[in-house]
Amino acid sequence: MAKPIYILNGPNLNLLGIREPAIYGAKTLDTIKEISEARAASLGYGVEFRQSNSEGELIGWIQEAGENASGLIINAGAYTHTSIAMLDALRAVAVPCVEVHLSNIFQRETFRHESYISKASAGVICGFGPKGYELAVEALAEIVDHAE
Amino acid sequence: MAKPIYILNGPNLNLLGIREPAIYGAKTLDTIKEISEARAASLGYGVEFRQSNSEGELIGWIQEAGENASGLIINAGAYTHTSIAMLDALRAVAVPCVEVHLSNIFQRETFRHESYISKASAGVICGFGPKGYELAVEALAEIVDHAE
Amino acid sequence: MAKPIYILNGPNLNLLGIREPAIYGAKTLDTIKEISEARAASLGYGVEFRQSNSEGELIGWIQEAGENASGLIINAGAYTHTSIAMLDALRAVAVPCVEVHLSNIFQRETFRHESYISKASAGVICGFGPKGYELAVEALAEIVDHAE
Amino acid sequence: MAKPIYILNGPNLNLLGIREPAIYGAKTLDTIKEISEARAASLGYGVEFRQSNSEGELIGWIQEAGENASGLIINAGAYTHTSIAMLDALRAVAVPCVEVHLSNIFQRETFRHESYISKASAGVICGFGPKGYELAVEALAEIVDHAE
Amino acid sequence: MAKPIYILNGPNLNLLGIREPAIYGAKTLDTIKEISEARAASLGYGVEFRQSNSEGELIGWIQEAGENASGLIINAGAYTHTSIAMLDALRAVAVPCVEVHLSNIFQRETFRHESYISKASAGVICGFGPKGYELAVEALAEIVDHAE
Amino acid sequence: MAKPIYILNGPNLNLLGIREPAIYGAKTLDTIKEISEARAASLGYGVEFRQSNSEGELIGWIQEAGENASGLIINAGAYTHTSIAMLDALRAVAVPCVEVHLSNIFQRETFRHESYISKASAGVICGFGPKGYELAVEALAEIVDHAE
Amino acid sequence: MAKPIYILNGPNLNLLGIREPAIYGAKTLDTIKEISEARAASLGYGVEFRQSNSEGELIGWIQEAGENASGLIINAGAYTHTSIAMLDALRAVAVPCVEVHLSNIFQRETFRHESYISKASAGVICGFGPKGYELAVEALAEIVDHAE
Amino acid sequence: MAKPIYILNGPNLNLLGIREPAIYGAKTLDTIKEISEARAASLGYGVEFRQSNSEGELIGWIQEAGENASGLIINAGAYTHTSIAMLDALRAVAVPCVEVHLSNIFQRETFRHESYISKASAGVICGFGPKGYELAVEALAEIVDHAE
Amino acid sequence: MAKPIYILNGPNLNLLGIREPAIYGAKTLDTIKEISEARAASLGYGVEFRQSNSEGELIGWIQEAGENASGLIINAGAYTHTSIAMLDALRAVAVPCVEVHLSNIFQRETFRHESYISKASAGVICGFGPKGYELAVEALAEIVDHAE
Amino acid sequence: MAKPIYILNGPNLNLLGIREPAIYGAKTLDTIKEISEARAASLGYGVEFRQSNSEGELIGWIQEAGENASGLIINAGAYTHTSIAMLDALRAVAVPCVEVHLSNIFQRETFRHESYISKASAGVICGFGPKGYELAVEALAEIVDHAE
Amino acid sequence: MAKPIYILNGPNLNLLGIREPAIYGAKTLDTIKEISEARAASLGYGVEFRQSNSEGELIGWIQEAGENASGLIINAGAYTHTSIAMLDALRAVAVPCVEVHLSNIFQRETFRHESYISKASAGVICGFGPKGYELAVEALAEIVDHAE
Amino acid sequence: MAKPIYILNGPNLNLLGIREPAIYGAKTLDTIKEISEARAASLGYGVEFRQSNSEGELIGWIQEAGENASGLIINAGAYTHTSIAMLDALRAVAVPCVEVHLSNIFQRETFRHESYISKASAGVICGFGPKGYELAVEALAEIVDHAE
Repeated sequence: MAKPIYILNGPNLNLLGIREPAIYGAKTLDTIKEISEARAASLGYGVEFRQSNSEGELIGWIQEAGENASGLIINAGAYTHTSIAMLDALRAVAVPCVEVHLSNIFQRETFRHESYISKASAGVICGFGPKGYELAVEALAEIVDHAE
Repeated sequence: MAKPIYILNGPNLNLLGIREPAIYGAKTLDTIKEISEARAASLGYGVEFRQSNSEGELIGWIQEAGENASGLIINAGAYTHTSIAMLDALRAVAVPCVEVHLSNIFQRETFRHESYISKASAGVICGFGPKGYELAVEALAEIVDHAE
Repeated sequence: MAKPIYILNGPNLNLLGIREPAIYGAKTLDTIKEISEARAASLGYGVEFRQSNSEGELIGWIQEAGENASGLIINAGAYTHTSIAMLDALRAVAVPCVEVHLSNIFQRETFRHESYISKASAGVICGFGPKGYELAVEALAEIVDHAE
Repeated sequence: MAKPIYILNGPNLNLLGIREPAIYGAKTLDTIKEISEARAASLGYGVEFRQSNSEGELIGWIQEAGENASGLIINAGAYTHTSIAMLDALRAVAVPCVEVHLSNIFQRETFRHESYISKASAGVICGFGPKGYELAVEALAEIVDHAE
Repeated sequence: MAKPIYILNGPNLNLLGIREPAIYGAKTLDTIKEISEARAASLGYGVEFRQSNSEGELIGWIQEAGENASGLIINAGAYTHTSIAMLDALRAVAVPCVEVHLSNIFQRETFRHESYISKASAGVICGFGPKGYELAVEALAEIVDHAE
Repeated sequence: MAKPIYILNGPNLNLLGIREPAIYGAKTLDTIKEISEARAASLGYGVEFRQSNSEGELIGWIQEAGENASGLIINAGAYTHTSIAMLDALRAVAVPCVEVHLSNIFQRETFRHESYISKASAGVICGFGPKGYELAVEALAEIVDHAE
Repeated sequence: MAKPIYILNGPNLNLLGIREPAIYGAKTLDTIKEISEARAASLGYGVEFRQSNSEGELIGWIQEAGENASGLIINAGAYTHTSIAMLDALRAVAVPCVEVHLSNIFQRETFRHESYISKASAGVICGFGPKGYELAVEALAEIVDHAE
Repeated sequence: MAKPIYILNGPNLNLLGIREPAIYGAKTLDTIKEISEARAASLGYGVEFRQSNSEGELIGWIQEAGENASGLIINAGAYTHTSIAMLDALRAVAVPCVEVHLSNIFQRETFRHESYISKASAGVICGFGPKGYELAVEALAEIVDHAE
Repeated sequence: MAKPIYILNGPNLNLLGIREPAIYGAKTLDTIKEISEARAASLGYGVEFRQSNSEGELIGWIQEAGENASGLIINAGAYTHTSIAMLDALRAVAVPCVEVHLSNIFQRETFRHESYISKASAGVICGFGPKGYELAVEALAEIVDHAE
Repeated sequence: MAKPIYILNGPNLNLLGIREPAIYGAKTLDTIKEISEARAASLGYGVEFRQSNSEGELIGWIQEAGENASGLIINAGAYTHTSIAMLDALRAVAVPCVEVHLSNIFQRETFRHESYISKASAGVICGFGPKGYELAVEALAEIVDHAE
Repeated sequence: MAKPIYILNGPNLNLLGIREPAIYGAKTLDTIKEISEARAASLGYGVEFRQSNSEGELIGWIQEAGENASGLIINAGAYTHTSIAMLDALRAVAVPCVEVHLSNIFQRETFRHESYISKASAGVICGFGPKGYELAVEALAEIVDHAE
Repeated sequence: MAKPIYILNGPNLNLLGIREPAIYGAKTLDTIKEISEARAASLGYGVEFRQSNSEGELIGWIQEAGENASGLIINAGAYTHTSIAMLDALRAVAVPCVEVHLSNIFQRETFRHESYISKASAGVICGFGPKGYELAVEALAEIVDHAE
């Protein structure tokens, strides 16, 4: 049976949909987890879905994914733009990675235009809200399926 | 009945899959057209699929899409990084736009990291090859459906 | 009899006043043509008024103006900021040029602050909407009259 | 009766036409004052025409214009490129402002390409010598007339 | 009764006054805590005073303050200049924030001149040593009192 | 008896609260003067409170403060970002200086992020409106008291 | 028999020698064509010599050269410095390319110092006027002959 | 008896030699620990050898070294280039520090050329793989011995 | 009889030698005046020696020197680095100018390395304290003598 | 009889073809000398061919060429990008200069894209290996012949 | 028998320990030579130890080392930061190179942070004074021994 | 008896007045030597006057001046802007240095605005041609006399 897909979420994504739904939408991270699991299941994959505010913990999970996952979807939040350490972790593991962002980061502040995660990802999906996770699952599944 | 989705392809994408398949893959732009049409049809949309090497012609098609399309998917190729005129065209039309690239442009030369198209697009999908068009169709359909 | 004034308009200016009049004002490019012709007539000049989305076509018209025009008014739209080729065309022709913009480009994005057209223009008028074309006609007429 | 138009001239413009007429032209600032008054009168406006080498005095006059003027035409000379304080004064007053320069500043040294005045002006006219003041009067009158 | 003020201190501030008092002054972080509590009490507020070397833990505390605090005073230490994640946390919570630094960061290395915290803070107080915390308490109390 | 505190205000601050109270608040510079005097009196200091639009006059007052003042509070307005001459004056005088701004300058245009005044100030207080003057008085009094 | 050499000329080169011969020299593009053909013939190659002001058309000709030419000489004029799309076309075709410029572009404006064409050319010849085309033919012939 | 040498290793160094030995070499971090201990023992020092993916934990260990260590060897991994907080910790402690890297960071991406750790280190050793740790122990021992 | 040499001194130079002689030396601006007059007299020139903190007043004096002086020596103090208006004044007047600074500005902060005054001066003398004025007088006298 | 052509070669070019022929090709600098002499002879010129690793010696030879040569071909190697002194020498001598490089320097590291030699050369030939010397001889001969 | 290690020292290192021992330490370059020879001898290598102020001579020695040395240790002094020619020489020779500096160059002026030597060195050792040469000998010996 | 003044001249200054007197003036370096000797003699100093095109030789002369000279005047020519090695030599020697340039380097190309020599010179004199050497002698003599 296929190893699961790891979906890792970075700092502040735990607030999603709980506080200020008028701004961030009503969908919580739990809803995104369910959406992702459903799409993954339809493609024959389980999902390991996590969130952390800690850069060190996220690095540990990426390393763990290198052992236990078919592939990796990562929304690194603000660490996207500052964490060379997460880039190094992604490069050190052999599994493919898809980068996802809820918002279109290229329409936000200049310091959000550069991504260290992109340097180690197969591809990027951003701007489509929770839908982007679904698309990322499909994109990752295709990469994993063809690599096997 | 829903207006079709316009899928516009920029310079040199006509060479896809015809020359040097070992490098660019065996899939031609025609195959991408078919993949896109199939996914769009499954979501209730037709597709108007075009390619041009001319910046002026692409601007004209974006303007036309403003009249005739439900939404717009654009792979502007090299014009992505140089064409403020295409950005202005996208801003002038009311229909939503999804930006797509075959390769992960953030792993290529620095002058390919900045996109004028992104400034007027709902979101970006890059790095997944022809599969990215399929995902773009689904992303765009969701945006169009929810906007209606 | 004096050669006419060429008034050349760049990409997306054909949309003026037709779409989204609440944003761009109700005046179409045709209205601007009429305003310009009226002011030019009062100063003894005819007007050749054109618009194109194609950089190459605009270059051709500038070259043509070098043969057939008393002077040149150009609103190059987005090409203002990217077209060294239009700068070269303007430098190659002997007739005076006035640069005009509907909006105050210096209050917009940074990439609109630099103009290649300015490097070959006698002067610049921007921020006054259609009125700017009228002023440009008067400014150009003064230059042409004094050069004769 | 309409409040007058304030026309404020910055440092060194008092030298105009007096010294080195071969270089700067024979027209003095007094002549420009007369040209401006004539055009303003034809449009129903009086003119308050001043020059100062002092940044502080110019700021005071801009503040005064906020009380007493229909609108403001400013040729800030070298302060154009260095005076954030004049920008703040222009933003603090409610009357519209037109920026004018005798020369085409975009063909001069790089440090003259950026204008703080532009950030608070309706529009810019440069490169047409004394004629530019006339055009600025007409542009400003149109703005004032339509705002009333 | 009013919710308390959260005062959060970033990396290395636990060393304050303990090591090298000749350099950093004799006042420990405990003394600053007492000074802050006294001023807050005089203004009707309690204080929740914490320090951490962990970016993730600080993010968690900011999120907690969004639930439990009247307002937030933050001396993010070195994370001031590198943590977009803390900026995002501050923007996600609804309570006002005052940024404080013991030293005048603008007289130190260039990489300490930019602050991500400032982008989400009502105001900044720096350079006054422990006294700055007292002033920050008063500033924050005024903001909270007027917002109620 | 202690020498007074000089509180110097730069260009355009004379407009405070008089024009556009909806934007700038209803408090005039006179009110700020009163608030500052009250707090200073409670700490045993008199206040010399002035405003000028002239960089040269402000330099003169800083030099005068070097002779006559216990300390200096300065809100240099736009000169904050451009006046090396005021920096030199502050460095030449022996009395301590506190920099204050009504708004949080770090959330405004990039050209307002750099302060020449900061290079010669003990500390900075910004973003708290008129309240910031009160806090500056207290901060300065502490510095002066401890230096004596 | 050997495929011909394509010699492609970019915007404004059609004006060569026709207008302002005192500045640009008396040699027209036709003369350059003849010189090039003569040198090519002496080395056993035919020449396909073209000029266009349109970036899109030039891209098409580069693609065509990929099918029909032994090699490619390109004077891209102003597009040299702005056209990533032409770079992509050159990279997509398998035939060798020599870049030529009439003037020494490194002694002109800074924005003419960077060439996208150079990134896909075997070599560069600039500054020798029409003679440079002759040298480019010889350089290209050597490359083609040795590659066969 | 001399206090031990602290050898601290940053993010992802735990993967060394375990995964992908063909790339990173067969030597694990445990082997490096043994090599370091042997050299230190020969110079009369014990070793405290640790690794963490957490910036906060590394800061804590540096602070601890300030109390308990003769000196400090640090391979901060990716945090080398981003952690001002670790720089501050190093500056706050009194013990000497030697910076070590396995690879020659100056031949890698530009963002790895700048080191915050270097600003607080006696010296730097990079590019020699595990051997570098041995050299760092000898360099540090010399500094500690001469300082006593 | 020869027109006098104007020696103009900018902001804060009035403090010279009066305050903090240990830092700035015991020589006042009056002493520099005397030294300058003595050297000028020996070369057959009188001296008009002035100081102002006002940029506007300095501009006026430069304009006056254009009428009344043989040549101009200017120590513009901090305005050296910020005053385009003084540069314009110097360019507008026909008399030669020598720039002088007491300190070696190239060993001070980076923002003191660029001089607008240099762009209109025959030459620069810096770093020699009051002696530099003497040398400037001799340098200027030579220029004036040879120009006559 | 015509003065000879000086062909000057900079640092490390003496290694050409001797070491690592697989990388640099089998042609030594002696072979290039012969090729150059042959082409020059066919055009009626002798050749003075030299190589030095010393910037000072190369400067001396350029000065000598100013006396003794018809023209100058220079491959300055790495000094191309760093030697303002060689630029000054080239500008000081009256003979024309052609710059040549074996490789296409615009496809190498960024610090090889700028050439001080280009600022004083009639033209540049790069990327064609030893063949480039032949072309340079022909280009230089044409310049010299037409200047006579 | 093994070829010797070349240790090359750049400009001004001949002054070491002779002038101003209080600043530079009492150890002369001769002492460093002895220390290096001793460590090399213990590892089975002889040493060829040289110093020159001439970039050209240093290039020659690097080329010579390519023939005669087992490996190369280089302290290029100020040429570290400016000599692309020495980088090219290092790349042209096949023997391994270790870069050494007496001081920690990363704590000095910014223009000393970039090293051309690093781009062709196996590794870098800096900041340990003469001890660094000893460590460099050991590091180089390990590289040479393992390469054999 | 006082040690002599060393006057060192860098690359290409040997050409002075010999070639192209219309451009560089009729005064040769020998004339400058005589002028300098005369002024030095009048102040009680002898002169050691030299020129070299070799950076290494100039470094050696600076080191020699450290032993044998009262002080040093240096016109480093183009090495002014590129030679960190000469800066290091100047810093290593204890004698004072005056930097001189014939032209006003601040009115020439941007790459001539930065001087490494200035960082180790007491002061700078530029723009006065041969006269500048005379002034430099007087300035240096004053420094040497006062230091004794």
